[in-house]
Formats: sequence, structure tokens, C-alpha cells
Amino acid sequence: MSQIVTLTTDFGRESIYVAQMKGVLLGINPHVTIVDVTHEIPPQDIQTGAWILRQVVPTFPRGSVHLAVVDPGVGTDRPCLCADLDGRYLIAPDNGLITYLAEVLPVRAIVRLENPAYRLPSVSATFHGRDVMAPAAAWLTLGVALDQLGPAHSGPAKLPVELTPALSDRQIRGTVVFVDRFGNLITNIEKQCLPIGRNITVTIGGQRISGLARTYGERTPGELVALINSLGYVEIAIVNGNAAQQMGLGVGTPVVINW
Amino acid sequence: MSQIVTLTTDFGRESIYVAQMKGVLLGINPHVTIVDVTHEIPPQDIQTGAWILRQVVPTFPRGSVHLAVVDPGVGTDRPCLCADLDGRYLIAPDNGLITYLAEVLPVRAIVRLENPAYRLPSVSATFHGRDVMAPAAAWLTLGVALDQLGPAHSGPAKLPVELTPALSDRQIRGTVVFVDRFGNLITNIEKQCLPIGRNITVTIGGQRISGLARTYGERTPGELVALINSLGYVEIAIVNGNAAQQMGLGVGTPVVINW
Amino acid sequence: MSQIVTLTTDFGRESIYVAQMKGVLLGINPHVTIVDVTHEIPPQDIQTGAWILRQVVPTFPRGSVHLAVVDPGVGTDRPCLCADLDGRYLIAPDNGLITYLAEVLPVRAIVRLENPAYRLPSVSATFHGRDVMAPAAAWLTLGVALDQLGPAHSGPAKLPVELTPALSDRQIRGTVVFVDRFGNLITNIEKQCLPIGRNITVTIGGQRISGLARTYGERTPGELVALINSLGYVEIAIVNGNAAQQMGLGVGTPVVINW
Repeated sequence: MSQIVTLTTDFGRESIYVAQMKGVLLGINPHVTIVDVTHEIPPQDIQTGAWILRQVVPTFPRGSVHLAVVDPGVGTDRPCLCADLDGRYLIAPDNGLITYLAEVLPVRAIVRLENPAYRLPSVSATFHGRDVMAPAAAWLTLGVALDQLGPAHSGPAKLPVELTPALSDRQIRGTVVFVDRFGNLITNIEKQCLPIGRNITVTIGGQRISGLARTYGERTPGELVALINSLGYVEIAIVNGNAAQQMGLGVGTPVVINW
Repeated sequence: MSQIVTLTTDFGRESIYVAQMKGVLLGINPHVTIVDVTHEIPPQDIQTGAWILRQVVPTFPRGSVHLAVVDPGVGTDRPCLCADLDGRYLIAPDNGLITYLAEVLPVRAIVRLENPAYRLPSVSATFHGRDVMAPAAAWLTLGVALDQLGPAHSGPAKLPVELTPALSDRQIRGTVVFVDRFGNLITNIEKQCLPIGRNITVTIGGQRISGLARTYGERTPGELVALINSLGYVEIAIVNGNAAQQMGLGVGTPVVINW
Repeated sequence: MSQIVTLTTDFGRESIYVAQMKGVLLGINPHVTIVDVTHEIPPQDIQTGAWILRQVVPTFPRGSVHLAVVDPGVGTDRPCLCADLDGRYLIAPDNGLITYLAEVLPVRAIVRLENPAYRLPSVSATFHGRDVMAPAAAWLTLGVALDQLGPAHSGPAKLPVELTPALSDRQIRGTVVFVDRFGNLITNIEKQCLPIGRNITVTIGGQRISGLARTYGERTPGELVALINSLGYVEIAIVNGNAAQQMGLGVGTPVVINW
């Protein structure tokens, strides 16, 4: 087991809540290595949280513990879970945050965080991230076994919206799922979905783009381009510009690829 | 002594000044664990800094060193202090940042950071956070004793505004002291102040709220609710909404509880 | 070799790209200490990146590895470099980020990061920060020698704009190069350039300031002052105010000192 715990929340970057979670983690394991993935998930946006986890978790070494707190249902009876995803541990409320990670990593086991020995002595009704999930993460890094944290859980909640684009004969219909700070429009269409050796056309916002650029550097400033980005997805960008602002597009915009 | 040093400043999150403080800390103790509490305290807002320290410091393990730099008086003759608060160490300028922590933790000792052996060789007139306070924090984590850092200090500066609400017969008059990123209005009224087994009414911004909700989840979206939040304070919120924006209220708004 | 790796990028603070770089670093060396200098460099602003590196790198202990990714040329044939600057290691694309550091630290050696053994197995066209530079940084902290990372490189790219102000008889002509979050205007005029024992006049935005203040604290609120700041540069500020906003000035504003 590594000593690494990552944090992915919607608390806001410098929130008191984040600092309290770190205090709890370090109080149980003073040698834990804490990595902030992001605390800027839009409030209660489970969809974005699940997508970010899918991109980030696989880049960390096996044995890392990933703590995700986007938790609009806190205080209801939804359980908090710990899942073993091929040796990566996800700790999160049972609200669908696991959805897209579970598409790419095999789920070996899931438990509910119900063992009081691995919670704080007093559990609030409104902050399970600090009182239930952070302690479980810290104890995992100290070698506590998954099945000590609580009973097995089956059928974790999944999000209704699939990330997978619609494939048909000579066409892929996808969606913009993320806009980065440069205004690049990132779609849910992965490199592997594209035909090999065909000339493709990308249509977005009424504009047609012929073929894929290999890099920004090979095109001229101001040009609208599509390329495979470093996350492995089709991305639409304006070279040295801001595609989202200049085209007035964002998350949810349809993207069609034909060939 | 732990190797943990937390940072709470008004320098702005990614400021050069924060990075320089971390360089100094790691130059003295390469094994220190640095935790950013926040660098987004409103510039020179000692009141907010003191309130955040009160919420965060007690969640960290004993032996941690908490470095707080909100320092409008830098360059004047106000001393920099290190206080032992029941085994937690606060390093801060003597301007009242200790006020609310000292309400909840016993102050065992306070010294002024005057020993040149534990300052940088050259101390600037404008950045004691880097030149005086960061070195003291790093040396503490290496086992230097408190009384080696400088002479004893008595009567640290305290803030004039008390956090304590006014209690009278069947009424508490408090104030909003913090607004979180969800727009929830956090008051200075702690759970312990409330009567047990009485029906209370919370009045804020001309609106009356009957009783306390246990969680957001048990109420309907759009409803105005009061509850005990995870920090232990009465908080006013709109379920799935933003109370601060929708009601036009913020820090300083009076809150009255009757029963 | 220390275990410290600092990160300076234009990816945005909580970006997926930053998290992936941290995953790669920790996957190669789980004991690395990662310090975020900033991820808020304005997109593709090499000038600001180079200036921040100059201020921050020298405050870290020798042996630290500084990873800087402001990389508008990613995907072109510009190499990625690792430079040994008097025992500090800078890893960055060859686009001028080294310029101002190389003015203050002797460059002992520079190599191109071309050894595939110290890159990720698959290198994308658009994210060398994760695929080339982060692995090199992690391997360095594990003791891999500089010359194992790739062949020697000479003549790294330098920025055309010099930071050095123009000195003439009884006059210095400089520029505002940075505005901090308090609105203080930081110039490129270093303390060492100033005459000793002369009465100087600072002119900026049509205003004249007589002499230097030692600290903010010794002047009255609202007063326009010039002083030597904690970075060692002449800085123009309004006491308890925001000089940039109130005077409508910013990066690029000329500053003249006469005596």
C-alpha cells in the first residue's frame, strides 16, 4: 500500500473543509502524501467529478487512495463506499462518482464505510468527507484491509448519462464534455473510435474541419483545428485562440465526425 | 515534534511569496510536510484569518506548526510570535491572529522570534513571513525548543470584536461571520448555545425559519433552512440554492434566534 | 540529490494536466516532495514564467528539480531541456524560460531529454510536460545523472526582452514587470542599481515620488510610496490601497528614477 491520498472535491480550493480533511488524514497517518487533484468541481456536479476521476486516477501508481467528495446527498442514507479498482482505491459517496472509472478499471471489491473503528468518534450529519471518508483513506494507507472498513456492497449507483459516443456506419456522434482554461473543447470521442486511414470531417457549431492536426504548432494562428489531445480524446481548438469564447460553445455541444 | 507545517496567508494562492516561504522551509528541513490551509484571506483581514485558524488548527495533530501571515504591520516594531497552544504551535505576527484560537486552546507559552540564529541571515523590512517566521517554523520541526527562538512574551494583541454572540433570556443575537462557496451563511452561534428541547425560530434578513433541519437532504430544493453545520455552527442555507446571492446577505448580517 | 520537485505551469491550478503530471512523478518516485509554485502563469506567457522562475528557484535548496511547462511550441521540434544551474535543475522546453535564471546562476550543463528510457513509453504530441519532462524530473530525484537523460545541448533559446533597466548618468529607466494581488507595481530595478546616499525621485504615471520609504507602516494610508520590496526590487505602492487600480497602471508602465 502506498502512502498517497488524492483529493477531488467541490469544496473550493482553499476551503476550511479541505484543510480539516487534511488535518484528519495527517492526524491518523502523519506520513501520508496528500495530492490535491481539484477542489473546483462545480458544486454538486457528480458528472464532472466522475469524468475527472476517470482521467486522473489511472495515471497514479497502484495502491494510491483516491478520495472524492461531491456529495449532495450527505445526511441522507446513501452509504459511503471504498472500491478496489484493480489495486486503485476510490473512496466516495455512493452517488455515481465511480461510473466512468468502472468503465476502464475492473472492480474487484466494494465495501460500505460502516465500521465505527475507522470513522471519527463523532460523525456529523453534514460532513462525511471529514468524518467518514478521510479516516478510512488514512487507515487504508496504514495497511488496514478493505474488508475491515465495512460490509461488502453490490450495485453501486451509476450515472444515467453515458460518456460513450454513438457510433454508426461512417459516423460518430459525440459531445463536448469539458472545456479547458485555454478554451479548447474536449469531446467524449476517443482516439480508438476513429477509422484508420480515412479522411474524416469534424462538424461542430456549424463549422466543418477537414482532418486532424497532429499539433497546434503545425497550423497557423487563428485556424480552427481538431486533434487528438493528450488525454486521448478528439479536441477542437483555435490555434493561439479560445475556441469556446470565439465560437460561443461549451459542454453539451454536439460534435459529429463523418468519413 | 511532527514535521507538519501549515500555511495560512493573504498572499494569494500562487504567489511568489508563498513559493519563497516554501523554499526557505525546505532549505532548513527538506523533510517537512507543508499543508496550504489558504492563501486567499482577504488582504490584511486579520479577523478572517483568526476565525479560520480557530476552525482548522484543532483538527491537526498535536506538534504541528501553524504559520499564519496576515501582516499589515510588517516593518513596524510589532514582534513576530510563536505560541504553544496545548502542544499546537502558532507562528504569527503579534496583531490578534491568535485571538480565537486562544479562546479554545490553553496558551502554555509565547515567545518573540528574536534569536538571529533562527532567522535568515538577512531580514528584509517587508517580508517577515519568509525571513523570520518560516525559518522559526522549520527549526521547530527539527526539534529546536520554543525558548530557544527568543524571549518570553506576555499580553499578545487581541482583536476587539468578540466572536461570541449575545445571549439573553430566550434569545441569542449573533452574526454571519463567513460565507462559503455554496453561498451558505455561517453564523457565530455554536450548537452549545442553543436550548435543548425547545422550538426555536431563526430570523435573518426579514425571513423567519422554524426549527433546525438535520440535513439538506431531508428538505425540498429551494427551501430556506437553518441547521448545525459540520463546523458546529448555526448555518442558514437554501437547499440546492445560494442563500447569500438569492437573499443579498453576507458577513455582518444579524441573525436572531428566539424560543 | 534532494527529493523536491517544483511545478511552474500555465495549466490552471486544478487542471487535470497538473494532476496527471503528479501521478507520473509519484509513479516513478513515490517519495518525491512536490511543491506547486504556480499554475496560473497567463497562457503561453514565457516572459512571466521566466521572471517567476528567477524569483523562486534561488530560494530552494540546491539539488531541487524545477519543472516549468509553458509550452506554446509543444509538438514542434523544439527540444525539452534539463539544465544544471549551479546545482539547481531546471527542466523546461527550449523556449527562453531559462533566460532570467541564467542571468543569476551559472549554467554548468544542459542536455536534451531524448533518452527514451527516461520518458513515458508512449509520448503524446501535445503534452510533453507529462510524457517527457515529469519522468525526467522524477528520475533525477532518484539519482539518475544529468548526462544519462540525453545529449548535451548548447545555445538554449533566450528571450529578446531583457529584464535589465537602462542606466545612464544620474538616471535609471525601468519598467513595471509584475503586479501583485495587492496592486503593488513591481519594477525591474534592483536595489543594487540605486545610488548610495543620494536623494532620488521616482516618476511613474505622471506622478513624482521623493525618496524611498523603508516600510508601508511608516507612511500614512493613501500615500503613494516607492520602496525596496522583499524581492529586492523597487516597488510602487499606495499605503493600504491598490496602486494598479487607483492609478490605472500595469505591466509595461515605464518607471524613471533620477538623482
